[in-house]
Amino acid sequence: MTHPKVLNPTQLLDNVQDHWAQQIIGSLNDYDIKIAKLLGEFVWHSHPDTDELFLILTGTLKIKLRDREVTLKSGEIFVVPKGIEHLPVAEEEVGVLLLEPKGVVNTGDAETDRRVDPRPMDGL
Amino acid sequence: MTHPKVLNPTQLLDNVQDHWAQQIIGSLNDYDIKIAKLLGEFVWHSHPDTDELFLILTGTLKIKLRDREVTLKSGEIFVVPKGIEHLPVAEEEVGVLLLEPKGVVNTGDAETDRRVDPRPMDGL
Repeated sequence: MTHPKVLNPTQLLDNVQDHWAQQIIGSLNDYDIKIAKLLGEFVWHSHPDTDELFLILTGTLKIKLRDREVTLKSGEIFVVPKGIEHLPVAEEEVGVLLLEPKGVVNTGDAETDRRVDPRPMDGL
Repeated sequence: MTHPKVLNPTQLLDNVQDHWAQQIIGSLNDYDIKIAKLLGEFVWHSHPDTDELFLILTGTLKIKLRDREVTLKSGEIFVVPKGIEHLPVAEEEVGVLLLEPKGVVNTGDAETDRRVDPRPMDGL
């Protein structure tokens, strides 16, 4: 077995510099536990094969869907269903925790240069 | 598709009365997102087929493992690996969020009357 650590995702955010670059901080079976800082508007995309869980650590995140928009505050959770197009918008910096199967990338099915593959967080 | 809601797990805890009874508040693919209030000492058990994610919402939870003990505070995450015996201990009331595949029960492989099957939270 691995020797899992107690994770404090909000504290770990202090060591994240780049926006939209997901940092893997742990795993749950074949799921990655990831954190990221978000700022500005991302790109419309969907994940054809998986739901995506957002847990807001700091700040307020809007997620635009094609038929509505949700606003998420610190401590709140939203699961974007599989295949549903969404556009995260962070008017000010937001810290999030993400949970999705290993191998899922931030831009999903979108053709865009905004793709940054998740990578294990340094120093963990 | 279902029409997922924004979830505030800490607020939802206000509507939970019983200790150790997991309430399902959402899903992520074939995983349940659950909350529970914990108080006192549970029973030693393991989950032979899955890891188990704890996210502490309120209070401080100790999880005893056979070779060590971890102390988890609000905002912290710990993943108990598949097959590893553990004993949650809440000296004062603790609110937790749990993530594990649907169908997993709180007592895992233990033979005990402490088993309470997870059920969808009322009013959600």
